[in-house]
Amino acid sequence: MRTSIATVCLSGGLVEKLESCAAAGFDGVEIMDADLVAAVESPEEIRALCARLGLTIDMYQPFRDVEGVTDDEFQDTLRRAEAKFTVMDRLGTDLMLVCSNVGTASIDDDALAAEQLGALADLAATHGIRLAYEALAWGRYVNDYRHAWDIVRRADRPNLGTCLDSFHILSRGDDPSGIEQIDGERIYFVQLADAPVLDMDLLSWSRHHRLFPGEGGFDLIGLLGHIDRAGYRGPISLEVFNDTFRQTDVSRTAAHARRSLTWLADRTSEAEHRAQDRLPAAQQARGIDFVEIAGQDLAPVDELLSQLGFSFGGRHRSKDVRLWEAGDARLILNEQRRSESCVLSAIGLSVDDAATASARGELLGAPPVFRRTYAGEHELRAVAAPDGTEVYWSDAGAEPAWLPEFVGGSLAATPLRAVVDHINIGHPWQEFDEAVLFAGAVLGLTPEPVEEVPGPVGLVRSQVMRSADDVVRLAINVAPPTSPEPPRHVALACDDVLAATRHAKAAGAALLPVPANYYDDLEARFGGTMDRALLDELRALGVFYDRQGAGEFLHVYTQAVGGVFFELVERRGGYDGYGAPNAPVRLGAQRRVAAHR
Amino acid sequence: MRTSIATVCLSGGLVEKLESCAAAGFDGVEIMDADLVAAVESPEEIRALCARLGLTIDMYQPFRDVEGVTDDEFQDTLRRAEAKFTVMDRLGTDLMLVCSNVGTASIDDDALAAEQLGALADLAATHGIRLAYEALAWGRYVNDYRHAWDIVRRADRPNLGTCLDSFHILSRGDDPSGIEQIDGERIYFVQLADAPVLDMDLLSWSRHHRLFPGEGGFDLIGLLGHIDRAGYRGPISLEVFNDTFRQTDVSRTAAHARRSLTWLADRTSEAEHRAQDRLPAAQQARGIDFVEIAGQDLAPVDELLSQLGFSFGGRHRSKDVRLWEAGDARLILNEQRRSESCVLSAIGLSVDDAATASARGELLGAPPVFRRTYAGEHELRAVAAPDGTEVYWSDAGAEPAWLPEFVGGSLAATPLRAVVDHINIGHPWQEFDEAVLFAGAVLGLTPEPVEEVPGPVGLVRSQVMRSADDVVRLAINVAPPTSPEPPRHVALACDDVLAATRHAKAAGAALLPVPANYYDDLEARFGGTMDRALLDELRALGVFYDRQGAGEFLHVYTQAVGGVFFELVERRGGYDGYGAPNAPVRLGAQRRVAAHR
Repeated sequence: MRTSIATVCLSGGLVEKLESCAAAGFDGVEIMDADLVAAVESPEEIRALCARLGLTIDMYQPFRDVEGVTDDEFQDTLRRAEAKFTVMDRLGTDLMLVCSNVGTASIDDDALAAEQLGALADLAATHGIRLAYEALAWGRYVNDYRHAWDIVRRADRPNLGTCLDSFHILSRGDDPSGIEQIDGERIYFVQLADAPVLDMDLLSWSRHHRLFPGEGGFDLIGLLGHIDRAGYRGPISLEVFNDTFRQTDVSRTAAHARRSLTWLADRTSEAEHRAQDRLPAAQQARGIDFVEIAGQDLAPVDELLSQLGFSFGGRHRSKDVRLWEAGDARLILNEQRRSESCVLSAIGLSVDDAATASARGELLGAPPVFRRTYAGEHELRAVAAPDGTEVYWSDAGAEPAWLPEFVGGSLAATPLRAVVDHINIGHPWQEFDEAVLFAGAVLGLTPEPVEEVPGPVGLVRSQVMRSADDVVRLAINVAPPTSPEPPRHVALACDDVLAATRHAKAAGAALLPVPANYYDDLEARFGGTMDRALLDELRALGVFYDRQGAGEFLHVYTQAVGGVFFELVERRGGYDGYGAPNAPVRLGAQRRVAAHR
Repeated sequence: MRTSIATVCLSGGLVEKLESCAAAGFDGVEIMDADLVAAVESPEEIRALCARLGLTIDMYQPFRDVEGVTDDEFQDTLRRAEAKFTVMDRLGTDLMLVCSNVGTASIDDDALAAEQLGALADLAATHGIRLAYEALAWGRYVNDYRHAWDIVRRADRPNLGTCLDSFHILSRGDDPSGIEQIDGERIYFVQLADAPVLDMDLLSWSRHHRLFPGEGGFDLIGLLGHIDRAGYRGPISLEVFNDTFRQTDVSRTAAHARRSLTWLADRTSEAEHRAQDRLPAAQQARGIDFVEIAGQDLAPVDELLSQLGFSFGGRHRSKDVRLWEAGDARLILNEQRRSESCVLSAIGLSVDDAATASARGELLGAPPVFRRTYAGEHELRAVAAPDGTEVYWSDAGAEPAWLPEFVGGSLAATPLRAVVDHINIGHPWQEFDEAVLFAGAVLGLTPEPVEEVPGPVGLVRSQVMRSADDVVRLAINVAPPTSPEPPRHVALACDDVLAATRHAKAAGAALLPVPANYYDDLEARFGGTMDRALLDELRALGVFYDRQGAGEFLHVYTQAVGGVFFELVERRGGYDGYGAPNAPVRLGAQRRVAAHR
């Protein structure tokens, strides 16, 4: 798949955008007229820069208000076009996007539209330029891709074709199979955008909420199948208008965009028999090998883990790294990092084939992580997620191959037997879509529906990504823009959360205090069908409770240590959620604790 | 008007919310169930706190899933309700909001709904509690206020009435005049929210985009008229779910909310003959008296103003303040402030009655500004806008009364004759609605449609507020969350911007460089109907150009000095805009200049 991207997807000036597109590995770009107009560099400089960067200029766009206008207006259109064709000559590009008329069209007449587009194409031909006519979803008279193609056929010029944009087709719910009726040679360009399924006016949806492929609800793989069967062999380009991507770091967003196309090419390659676009297979996680917490001084975390019932698993024989274990849950405390506060810094996943997993990650643009390894030590493969969190893969086995490197651990039985239930990774709000794409494309996880929870300082958005068999559940949480980055946490599943809580409290663990009003409310909500003794014990221990059908969820939180806290959970009767109804109470309690520090 | 507010409108914990509501001057509150549940304080403490703060608890809300359910479900509903009635007893409040059923309703039967609501009301009566039944716009079977009232009438209980919420009525486009058919004694509560006119699903619109009265597109004054004529005499309460207000400072948002009701009460008081709610009349600005720039060292501003053709108007005889004049445009440079960067700190408006203007401002919750005034000096009346910008009023006259306090000015003729065309005030994104309400309610300005401009680091939102005769035009600009606060600027209108630009360039003023591509585009857009010599001169001088019908706009920008820059503008043929199509080019150029400093 040849990849391209419209410069309008990215923040910054045109030169920064082009440099970032090249660094991210795009083959070409669509240059947005407005981006060139605002640039201080001449078209000749941009042309030369693209040549040096190895980027083709696949299209210049958009040109508007062409068809369905009066003769006088059309004469001015030809004059306007001539000036832009000259700019295109200087840029050295030969394809112009012509959007269906939304504003100035006053005449609903396909014959006239074809005549005017034809005349424009004839003028373009004198510059060796081709025109790609596209139906905007909110075009005045032409808003369906089939209608645009019909007008192109009527005009019948050798340099007039159509441009297909996934948003304009799928947002309207149009049947995309009609694409196969279009002559593939006359599909001059394909623009892709994903989008969340929203019920709002098309223009606002398109201008503010488009997403990169894999981040929304559109069936782009199906669409690409139709386009492929029509015979189109040109570039697949991203045109994503999004309020967030307009303001995020240009090189990071370009890498994010490029990852989305690599993922999409892989997903479509099987159906379309394009072996060159295949990635190594996504490796389903078989378990969570470890979770790592890093910081300068992790003694408070040692203490808290010990209070929770973890056993000291030993010190690494060559690094300033410690292991804590509770059944199958393993926590690594890494004091090699210089970060002052402690942070959840890495996740280890066991997979069938670690080498394949990391090869896939690197092909998806995730930088490999280097860790010094001494002779005889197991070499873990790892990549960094866009936010810097490291992901390690090891081949699934009876026990992790790296475990013997830890020495001097406690031989006593572990009071707590647990497994990592889910990991909650807080992000700044603008990293949401990037994190979701990474977890899907690189980690092979599948998104659950997004939850929005009202916290005391704004809405918290949470997207759980999980593996097919639920052994890995990663919650991506974003806080409102005015809030600091939310803390991250590790939830540990055990068989008896009440007993574990009693143990932790007896050991002096600082648990999150839960207000009495919460238990009064719990009684109001579930009192009719809930055992009185259980309710009393929840209240006495400060344990949260939730219910879904026959499933029950008991969970309790520690107070935060730096940027990390822990949760103990117990799932009964197939409960499959995360206690979202309790999140506002938990967030309020955390805020009170933080305020009193 | 008795005022109330739902605690869900504000950020923070329940105690902070209540303290802020009291400080802002609300008479009462609606306590949101979820806010109490998350609070560590007992209902008794909240009751005592409200009593001390002088806040009545007007309603407890919401209670859901009551009507249209099976018998078994309804028995559990009664049990749930009993628990919440007990909480209300402890809080000392006697009114509960019951929302029409959105989720669990399975039976579409008004007789059953009335029977179940009636039974719930009978249980409530044993606690001395009244129920206000409200139709949610997305209720499963009951979503129209007339339908809810019909069910209330059928149930016919002395403690069952209805609650009217402006959003649920106006978002659906329902005719509000039917309110007058409701017995006013049975309207137990009124909740108000404004909202922007959006084309999206009702639930998302309601949950994320409600606004305080005066900030959106609903006719709340008309609605209140119907409610008044129905005979309702209870509190008017705000229930505004808004993603921004959920995260902004609680006391500032409470003051903002209270201001919206003071403004609304004034606007409705005439029609409803409630003299006690009348404010002193808004004073239409007759002119801009001055604009003040403050900072520690303003010498670079002195230099720039001199280069633009301003004359030195003298030094204040008792303060470290200087005056620059150019015709009717007056700029005050105030070095009494300690802010390191220079900022646009104050605006002086001339009005018919300055005392009335400032009295109105103070009644609308704007704190008066104190400035030391010596004997014989003119005492200006001023208030601070929510962001700290000061607004001074003086009685309109031949010349400002304070002008003689400046001495030692230049006697030479002013090279530039100008008038302040508009003032552009940058705000952080979350201050937008607050700034719009302040400009409307306190300054008496009227909003124009919002513009969104794509800048190099995200969309910039701009809302111009103007006086009836256009002498005051205030542009409220907000940048995206990841950007720093945008600089502010003063636009000066003159008769010949080309001559003024030549003068400024000759004097060495640092103007904003405009890229050549911009002029190539200008030629493409307007070349057919534009004088070649004008185009060449615009290009040579770096002047921007825009056109609306027969109107033309020529404008040029200085580079920024600290947080301030200047614009020279010329309006030809009734041009009424601000050159918005040029804003992306201007923003790009400003970013380049800033990057090279």
